[in-house]
Amino acid sequence: MTNELELRVRYRECDPMGVVHHTVYPTWFEMGRTELLRSMGGCYRDLEAAGVFLVVVKLEVQYRQPARYDEVLTLETSLVRSTRAKIEHAYSLQRDGVLLATGETTLACLDASGHIREVPGSLVTAGDAPAT
Amino acid sequence: MTNELELRVRYRECDPMGVVHHTVYPTWFEMGRTELLRSMGGCYRDLEAAGVFLVVVKLEVQYRQPARYDEVLTLETSLVRSTRAKIEHAYSLQRDGVLLATGETTLACLDASGHIREVPGSLVTAGDAPAT
Amino acid sequence: MTNELELRVRYRECDPMGVVHHTVYPTWFEMGRTELLRSMGGCYRDLEAAGVFLVVVKLEVQYRQPARYDEVLTLETSLVRSTRAKIEHAYSLQRDGVLLATGETTLACLDASGHIREVPGSLVTAGDAPAT
Amino acid sequence: MTNELELRVRYRECDPMGVVHHTVYPTWFEMGRTELLRSMGGCYRDLEAAGVFLVVVKLEVQYRQPARYDEVLTLETSLVRSTRAKIEHAYSLQRDGVLLATGETTLACLDASGHIREVPGSLVTAGDAPAT
Repeated sequence: MTNELELRVRYRECDPMGVVHHTVYPTWFEMGRTELLRSMGGCYRDLEAAGVFLVVVKLEVQYRQPARYDEVLTLETSLVRSTRAKIEHAYSLQRDGVLLATGETTLACLDASGHIREVPGSLVTAGDAPAT
Repeated sequence: MTNELELRVRYRECDPMGVVHHTVYPTWFEMGRTELLRSMGGCYRDLEAAGVFLVVVKLEVQYRQPARYDEVLTLETSLVRSTRAKIEHAYSLQRDGVLLATGETTLACLDASGHIREVPGSLVTAGDAPAT
Repeated sequence: MTNELELRVRYRECDPMGVVHHTVYPTWFEMGRTELLRSMGGCYRDLEAAGVFLVVVKLEVQYRQPARYDEVLTLETSLVRSTRAKIEHAYSLQRDGVLLATGETTLACLDASGHIREVPGSLVTAGDAPAT
Repeated sequence: MTNELELRVRYRECDPMGVVHHTVYPTWFEMGRTELLRSMGGCYRDLEAAGVFLVVVKLEVQYRQPARYDEVLTLETSLVRSTRAKIEHAYSLQRDGVLLATGETTLACLDASGHIREVPGSLVTAGDAPAT
């Protein structure tokens, strides 16, 4: 389960070194998750409306090459593992086939009052789902 | 009614020209409004908890001189006019007495469902408040 | 001279009221200017590489209706006036034909050392260009 | 070598869940590094002016508890290891003694043309500095 998203770098996303600031990448990862879910037939906005909130509990990014203003990049977002307790994604950012950065996130699931709840069955695709 | 807020420019707030990006100033203005209200004995977080939401309906900024990373700036936020329908603020940003930018905002007041409501009496300080 | 740009609202662009934060709109306006220039055959990145920097000296935004996460919006960016001294743009943001916000910016032109210089002839389209 | 920085959460830093968005934490970490260097007698702005650029090559964040608008937080930034090749920092974010998040970054050093160079001796505090 993988989604490819094209991004054009905004001027606001770049810093005095003339490259994309490192804090921008996780915002792109979040966009990748939204689009991956959409490509699977889901909609994160509808999830929140239904009282299901996915929050990032762990983030890792490895930066290899800089990205610059106005470049068109390709973000590949993959669902690595989804269980009743957490969802793991991996990310790969490229420009014309050159790898710029990789990343991983772990999401947990909260209810509307902010308490941990099970990941909805519709999002569970592997692993330790209980037999029902 | 005026508040002075000291700000240190963050690296993330600067762009490839090496200066603060113009979209950052209204974020600082918002901080100035929070602190002005606090200095008057109020708390915007408590207002929201009570179902009172202040939204920006008009923004103007005039940029005169650039600000740069790590500089310490002084933002002066003034309440220009507050009525049952809207609240107007003015802003002046300086560095060591040099004027960098000025701005003005107009706020309206919404209830929790997003509808226009009257500005709470505690925030009305001048003008057209009805006699009660 | 007008450009239409489609935008999908990012989660990061929304605030605790559940709507797009007012400081995001001028970032979108900047994207609109980049695309308008591209549609006219220019490229702002090349301009900077050639030592021509366009800076916002005046910004105005009027907010009418909120925008929300995951909505697809249309930004119309128009070149209102371009002279040797400044460039003026106007913006109109819509969702399905509903007007959400309007705005105006004025740009000045700087050289690589940050001093005011004439707007390049290739960007001057109306008004007070000197006869040459 | 540790620095404590007090932060007040900005409204702009919070998302529709009403909590600080996860992409904001690394911006705070960067502020922590600036202040840690200052407390050691250095100045990152001067480093850049001298052609020394520190870039994040690896970022990790563990999120434990949410932070909210207007809260005052304490960020502890520690220099874990600094060699001729890289600089490692660790971060701990707290509110009234409650741990909200932890993180780690690895920085590399670039020259003005974007090539890897040695970390300046003045920033090397442990490990594999060559005898000279």
